Amino acid sequence: MPRLVAVGSIAYDSLETPFGRRDRALGGSAVHFALAARLFTEVGVVGVVGDDFDGEPVLTERGIDTSGIQVVPGGTTFAWEGRYGYDLNVAETLDTRLGVFEHFDPQLGAEHRDAPVLFLGNIQPDLQRSVRAQSNAAFVALDSMNLWIEIARDSLVAAIGEVDAVVLNDGEARQLTGEATLLRAARAISALGPRIVVIKRGEYGAALFVDGRFFGVPGYPLEEVFDPTGAGDSFAGGFVGYLAASGQTSPDLEHLRRAVAYGSIVASFNVEEFGTERVQRLGRDEVDGRVRDFHAMTSFVLA
Amino acid sequence: MPRLVAVGSIAYDSLETPFGRRDRALGGSAVHFALAARLFTEVGVVGVVGDDFDGEPVLTERGIDTSGIQVVPGGTTFAWEGRYGYDLNVAETLDTRLGVFEHFDPQLGAEHRDAPVLFLGNIQPDLQRSVRAQSNAAFVALDSMNLWIEIARDSLVAAIGEVDAVVLNDGEARQLTGEATLLRAARAISALGPRIVVIKRGEYGAALFVDGRFFGVPGYPLEEVFDPTGAGDSFAGGFVGYLAASGQTSPDLEHLRRAVAYGSIVASFNVEEFGTERVQRLGRDEVDGRVRDFHAMTSFVLA
Repeated sequence: MPRLVAVGSIAYDSLETPFGRRDRALGGSAVHFALAARLFTEVGVVGVVGDDFDGEPVLTERGIDTSGIQVVPGGTTFAWEGRYGYDLNVAETLDTRLGVFEHFDPQLGAEHRDAPVLFLGNIQPDLQRSVRAQSNAAFVALDSMNLWIEIARDSLVAAIGEVDAVVLNDGEARQLTGEATLLRAARAISALGPRIVVIKRGEYGAALFVDGRFFGVPGYPLEEVFDPTGAGDSFAGGFVGYLAASGQTSPDLEHLRRAVAYGSIVASFNVEEFGTERVQRLGRDEVDGRVRDFHAMTSFVLA
Repeated sequence: MPRLVAVGSIAYDSLETPFGRRDRALGGSAVHFALAARLFTEVGVVGVVGDDFDGEPVLTERGIDTSGIQVVPGGTTFAWEGRYGYDLNVAETLDTRLGVFEHFDPQLGAEHRDAPVLFLGNIQPDLQRSVRAQSNAAFVALDSMNLWIEIARDSLVAAIGEVDAVVLNDGEARQLTGEATLLRAARAISALGPRIVVIKRGEYGAALFVDGRFFGVPGYPLEEVFDPTGAGDSFAGGFVGYLAASGQTSPDLEHLRRAVAYGSIVASFNVEEFGTERVQRLGRDEVDGRVRDFHAMTSFVLA
């Protein structure tokens, strides 16, 4: 039985950045999340694909449990086409074909219902609530996106109220709460229920709010950024994966801080190559090494 | 004799933010810098004003040496009028009247030439070079802005080549070097001569590159930001002021890191009120306290 079950999208991404392009690269929130989390713990993926899907070996070769991936005969896998300019913080969507993802109705199998940790990737918040209700997990984390804040706000607020941890980017956190500063936005989200609020800031790092306390890291400095697609999901995978491996159902501040560092570092590897290319061959030793570098780069001593 | 001499603008800023407005608030790069640096060491200001200037008591009450402020009879002090929207990272200039600042030709008096530390605030780079040439300082730091990158690039590059430390914001660093990532931009600036490169990132924190090594801090999380005017100058004042107080002519990495933290914290106070209002009554104990909080907020321990 996996320790950590992740529900979300499985997709083919066609990407163009200033540095090159890839057609139908394996992607989707659940895929990026699972490859990242697998560096730390046993992971199962719950998602839906069409019978055009051939990406399963990338997951199984890393020891990821794919028994929760439903294949719809005659259906096509969710496909996204996008482009990044020199400002890699902004993606322009050229085409979205939902395919079988449009009618995704995730059901947890028995072995997935009892996994101790559940990650609700970015899907319609009523579906997130349905999965939450099916699960016996002791620790549940949730991601979302601007679309659901705009068109399903009440459902999203209800979903947030049912989880232990929320992972959003800073624009989403501000949009959801109407608060201008990160501190107030995070506090407002925590007031909806979750003990733990993580705010991703892309190249600028990440922040954690827990029990009224703030923790922040800058972004890991990279020589080159090739493709930011999946960075947020890789961050979430590193963060939740690290916590799942700790076995704590109510993680302490020390573990949470370290989990933010691990999430940041896995995301830093993710953006160095296209799609899943870097993380799918990433080793835990490489991650540990870069976390040590990151620690040295962010530490100062008081006088 | 002051340990630290700062050359730069002295101005009246008329500001409008979403939270209020101030007419003719005391401002300018040398003023914000000096008030910040004075928390750490003896500071002298070199600048020019018209006989409409009545801001000197704000400086002298803090023990800042104003003997280097030249008063031009019949002239008017540099005046800037600007507005910030809800994105406080972007200032819209409504009016700029250079007044006596247009023909500023800074001359160091004998007691200022021998100050061990010199800060070249944001003025035309040939003037920065002229001041540098007049000074016997053992440690010189420089700030600049996008205008000089655009219209006086060669002079700016020459000025950078003659200093120990450069303080720029991230947009300026990218614009100056044509490099997309912070790491490459900082390395390219260091290749122009300075051992120390500091990159300010506004609410996202600051980064330091020294001897090929990176150090970064996130922004200090604030409940409210009222007015970002002078934040960069306050940062520079905290950073250079802290180093000047250390007495090191080639500051070691530990002092430099701590100086970045001090700069960040002084800037965090600056933006909590309009203009110089907060920093002009700020105490060193308040700064030390917030630096300790900041240390706690940015520290994690390796497993």
